Order: sequence, then C-alpha cells, then structure tokens
Amino acid sequence: MKVDGKEMRPIWFNEDTQTVQVIDQRFLPHKLIIEDLTTLDAVIHAIKEMYVRGAPLIGATGALGTYVILAQQGNNGENDAWFTAACDTLKAARPTATNLVWGVDRVIAKVLAHKDYDTRVHAALEEALNVVEEEALNCQKIGEYGLSIIKEIAAKKHGEPVNILTHCNAGWLACIEYGTATAPMYAAFDAGVDIHVWVDETRPLNQGSRLTAWELGKHGIKHTVITDNAGGHLMQHGMVDMVIVGTDRTTRAGDVANKIGTYLKALAAKDNNIPFYVALPSSTFDWDITDGIKDIPIEERDPDEIRYIQGLCDGNIQSVLVPPESSPAANHAFDVTPARLVTGFITERGICEASQAAILGLFPDKQKKMGNR
Amino acid sequence: MKVDGKEMRPIWFNEDTQTVQVIDQRFLPHKLIIEDLTTLDAVIHAIKEMYVRGAPLIGATGALGTYVILAQQGNNGENDAWFTAACDTLKAARPTATNLVWGVDRVIAKVLAHKDYDTRVHAALEEALNVVEEEALNCQKIGEYGLSIIKEIAAKKHGEPVNILTHCNAGWLACIEYGTATAPMYAAFDAGVDIHVWVDETRPLNQGSRLTAWELGKHGIKHTVITDNAGGHLMQHGMVDMVIVGTDRTTRAGDVANKIGTYLKALAAKDNNIPFYVALPSSTFDWDITDGIKDIPIEERDPDEIRYIQGLCDGNIQSVLVPPESSPAANHAFDVTPARLVTGFITERGICEASQAAILGLFPDKQKKMGNR
Repeated sequence: MKVDGKEMRPIWFNEDTQTVQVIDQRFLPHKLIIEDLTTLDAVIHAIKEMYVRGAPLIGATGALGTYVILAQQGNNGENDAWFTAACDTLKAARPTATNLVWGVDRVIAKVLAHKDYDTRVHAALEEALNVVEEEALNCQKIGEYGLSIIKEIAAKKHGEPVNILTHCNAGWLACIEYGTATAPMYAAFDAGVDIHVWVDETRPLNQGSRLTAWELGKHGIKHTVITDNAGGHLMQHGMVDMVIVGTDRTTRAGDVANKIGTYLKALAAKDNNIPFYVALPSSTFDWDITDGIKDIPIEERDPDEIRYIQGLCDGNIQSVLVPPESSPAANHAFDVTPARLVTGFITERGICEASQAAILGLFPDKQKKMGNR
Repeated sequence: MKVDGKEMRPIWFNEDTQTVQVIDQRFLPHKLIIEDLTTLDAVIHAIKEMYVRGAPLIGATGALGTYVILAQQGNNGENDAWFTAACDTLKAARPTATNLVWGVDRVIAKVLAHKDYDTRVHAALEEALNVVEEEALNCQKIGEYGLSIIKEIAAKKHGEPVNILTHCNAGWLACIEYGTATAPMYAAFDAGVDIHVWVDETRPLNQGSRLTAWELGKHGIKHTVITDNAGGHLMQHGMVDMVIVGTDRTTRAGDVANKIGTYLKALAAKDNNIPFYVALPSSTFDWDITDGIKDIPIEERDPDEIRYIQGLCDGNIQSVLVPPESSPAANHAFDVTPARLVTGFITERGICEASQAAILGLFPDKQKKMGNR
C-alpha cells in the first residue's frame, strides 16, 4: 500500500541485493526502519522480536525464511536431514502462529522435490514468492467480500458513517497488502462508503495505536484511537456498528485465537447485539482441532513488554517504566474467542457462519481431506 | 496505611501548618510528592488533574475543600450566596463523582447552621474531619464483610491461594484507609489467608499498575500486573476465583459506574461463572436513579491521556507519545456495568445482591426517605 506516495510492503525480495528485506515494525509509527534478513538466526530474531507480526506476514516470512536457510548454506543444502532440522527450528519461533508452519512446509515440499542445490534454491524462492502473492490476493478477496457487509450496514445508516471497531493490527503491515481485518475498510473507503474506525490501542505492544492508526491515517481513513477498555461502553451507546478482527489461528469449529482482549470485545458485541466478524485467509484455519480453549497453547511473552512502554520523547524513541520496579507482570499474548460469539468469517472464498458445518461447507476440499484420515 | 514503615493517608489536615495536604498521586509509584491545598482553585485543580482520585477520597477532598473555601475568605464567609456559589463550583469539578457532591453538601449543612465566621470555620473543619474518619471506618467494615466471602472461597481451594482480580485503584490511596475493593484483600492478608491479586493496569492512566501494585507491594501482598485485555483469558482458564472492584456511582437498582473497562471484566466473569463483587461505602449509591446506562453521564477526558504515557526513564518521570502524532483519540473515562452482571455489593453495612429490593433491604432508611418524596 502507499506510504508517503510510495508503494510499500512489509516484506519483499530485493532483486538488486538478492536479499529478503522487512520493515522493522517495532519502531513504527515514529521511524521507518528496513532490515536485511540474511541468516536463519536473523529470520528467527525478526519473528520472535516482532519486526514482523501478524499471521499472514509470519507465514510469508516463514516461506522466505526457508529460502534464506537454503541460500546461506551452499552445497550443505543438499543434506535433507540438516535442511528439515533447520526448518523445524524456524517453525518453532512462535508457537501460536499456525501460518508459520504452513508457510515453511509449502517451501519444504518444493525443495525436497529436487536434488541439486541450485534447483532447490530457485524452487524455494519461487514458491516463497508464490506464498507472498497469494497472501496479497487472498486479502484483496477478503476485502471484496467484507465490503458487501459494510455496504449492507451503510444502507441502514442513512448517510451517517459506519463505525467499525478493530483490535490489534490485522492490516497490510501484517499481511503483505490490504490486510485481513482492514481489507474491508480499505475496500469500503476506496468505494466511497463513509466509514470511521475505532482503533483499540492493544496493550501491551500497542499494535493498534502504533500500526493500525498509522496505516489508516496514511490511507486517509477516519479513525480514533481508544483504550482496550472502551469498546464495551461505545457499544452500549450505539457508537459501534460492527467489529472486524483478524486471527492467528482458528479451529475448524470456529474458535478464534487472536490478540489478548479479543474475547472481551466479542462478549461486549454479543451483549449489545453488534455483528462480530473475523477476517482470515483459509491458511489460518487449523483443520486438526475443534476446541480452541483446550487445544490452542497461548504464548506467554516477556513481562517487560507490559512494564515498559515505548514511544517518542523529544524526537527519540524511549521506554518508560510504568509499575513499581518490584512488581511482577504476566504477559499472556493471545486469547480464544468461542465460536458462539462470532457472527461470521470473512475469507478469500466468501463469508460463512462460525460453525464446523458452515466452515466445511465453504471449504469442502478440507472435509474430504479430513474424511480420508 | 504503612509506607516504608510510616503511617500515611492520601489526605490529611496538618495541625502544625493548619493546611489541608494531599499526596500528588500523579507521580506514584516513582515519586512521593505532597502538596498543600490552600485555595479553592488548588482544590479544584487537585481533583480535575487527579492528584486525588477515587470516589471516597474525592468525597473527603470535597468536604475538606469546603473548609478551604471558608478558611481563605475571612469575613466574606458569612455571605451565604457567595459561599454556596463557591461550593457549586467545587461540586462541578468532576461530573461522575457523586461523592464529591455528597461530601461538600455535608459540610455546607453544618456551616449554614451557624452565622458567625469563626464558628462556621470551626464547624466546617470538624464536619470535614468527621467525613474523613467515617470513610476510614466504612472501609474497615467493608474489609470485614468482604473477608467472609474470601474465607468461603479459600475453604474450597485446599491451600491454594485465592486469586482475586481487580480493576483500577479502589485502594487506600482512593479511600483514606484500607480502600474499598482492596479492603477485603488487606483484611484477608492480615488474617493469614493466602491470596494473590491480578492487577489490571487500567488504561489510560494506569491506576492499577501504578497505584494498586504500589499499595499491595508496600503491604507485602502477592500480586501480578496484567493488561486490561488479559482478564477474560485468565478467567477461561480457572486462574481467577473472584473479582472485586470499586465504583464511582451506583444506582439504587444496582447499575455500577466505574473506571472504563469494568463492564468488560463483568461480562467475562458472568461468562465463566466467577463471582463479581463491587465494594462501596453507601455514600456512593445514587438513590435518585435506577438506569445507569441512561442516567449516568460519562466524563470525557483529555485525549492526550491516551496518546502520552508517563513513566520512569533514566531516573526521571517522562511521557512518551505512542500513536502517530496526527491520530486523534477519544477518552471516555467510565463505563456502566448493568446490575445483572454483579454478584453482590460489599458495603459498610453488609453484603447484598445487586437488585433494588436487596439494596433497599440493607438500607431501609433510604427507602423511607424515597417514600416520603
């Protein structure tokens, strides 16, 4: 998407330098810093430290990271055992991200279909770039389907803007282009539908106030940053027409793992009869599990992500300590929203209700695959 | 309560200097700064800028502020119209705080019962200090009643600690002594019951991570700071045994206005069958209204309270800007939790369910007063 008039993505292969490059999103919105990822360690560091974040971008980084593993190894890259072990290390970089495993596995399959090193490297890069372009196309389609829902709501608003609440950043920064949760917003804005977005700041890492607000602002979409605490109050008072969020992993029965706090917003939406949509490419579905609360492990991250808050002070990016130095903190990074609280899924293949029957109805190929087990 | 071994309250009358003094809570937990309030403007500034915050402390500050109005005016203090007009200005300093009006009105009644200035000043100080001591006593009783609930839960935990979640700071810093929501925690700790407190950081002003964590830590109570987003996840996984929060204003039907985000925690508690208690002195009940969502105006505060976050950096207290400079923010300070989500109220007179019948059953004098209208 556009940044100061220039087309930009959060990850790309630079033909000139022959390297994978990413935006280091930790310094947005205040500084735009670009990094080369030339080693497996650098790829894992970028995933763990959240230079890159968001399910589809992590999938794409996994795919391009698999190419990096091969590219850095010379003829060692013909050793299958070594290669798959390195890929396993990459896949373990973030436990909640099913897309990471998916992106790596896609490239592994193409690599192992060949024997000699140069062919493998070529196949890895080609498949990784396929993953990247498919993600972009998926998001475009999610935007088109989501637009139909926004237009329906707009028709009942009689010229008032459609107020959409979102949590975290499931925007183009997380997804190559368009985003998932933001794709319908960009599509609506570009189609001339009057929208306004409530942006949850999304503690502890503030991906909403830092990234979603930055993205929407650069595109010219009206938005307002709110605390994660505020959504329920806004919903009680008719100030939210719909919620759209992304997901890091969704079970085939429709339980949604997403950034911590999503569950609370879903409860408030249900309590106030407000539609709550989850936008996702189908690669985010985990077809192997049904009960998200029982079966999705929740990553616990460094408590200092809560204790220290980063922002701009006198032109420099600094961190301030908020609680007493001696107080401990706990940092559960995700939660699971049960399917019963979800109005529907917006996917690249269309919209469906949050039930196993409806999801498999939209993806009958997966049902067949499951039936064959 | 104790601070580094020394007894301290958040507001007091200094006999030596004959002035009202407060802790400027904006700089806690990193700096302990004490301020004199010697003019009406200083009192209003301290309330508006949140040197003092929390319903009971605001009530006590209103009462002592009414004394300050009189003390600064010399013989002008015999002018009833001037005095009541000044009191009206004071009462308007924070619109959600019913205790402010209550505290001021109590002192006004005593003042207007006399004619000459010196008697009025004496009566004002005496009544204001009565308000202060009554608040402390109320909190002590709330602690005793709340302890009975915690002991019941502890009996079922077989030696595991009782996990209590709280939002914002309804501690002694907000309430002279013991606090409201924290009073049962202090009582349980002092009685040797094993407890652990999940402290919501409470955006935007972080009263939880700054103040509640500081208070509990100084008293030696085990606690962990969490984001406002985390409570639902913890409840889903059996890590919360009960919730106790305070309130700024509660209708006679049991709708609870409290710090923004309380409603979301109450929804999660209901969804997970976890008891959700509100601790309050009866002065916080607004006997005139029933429907909190319709009838309680919600204060909107400066959006920069969201955009800038204050903390400690290199030994200095600094503020950092988190969202893009150009992104607007909206700062609704409170929300209303409907009575249907509240398990019960813990008051200085006992515990009751969240219904008009139960509340008036505990406070039959209010029923009589209402019947006489």
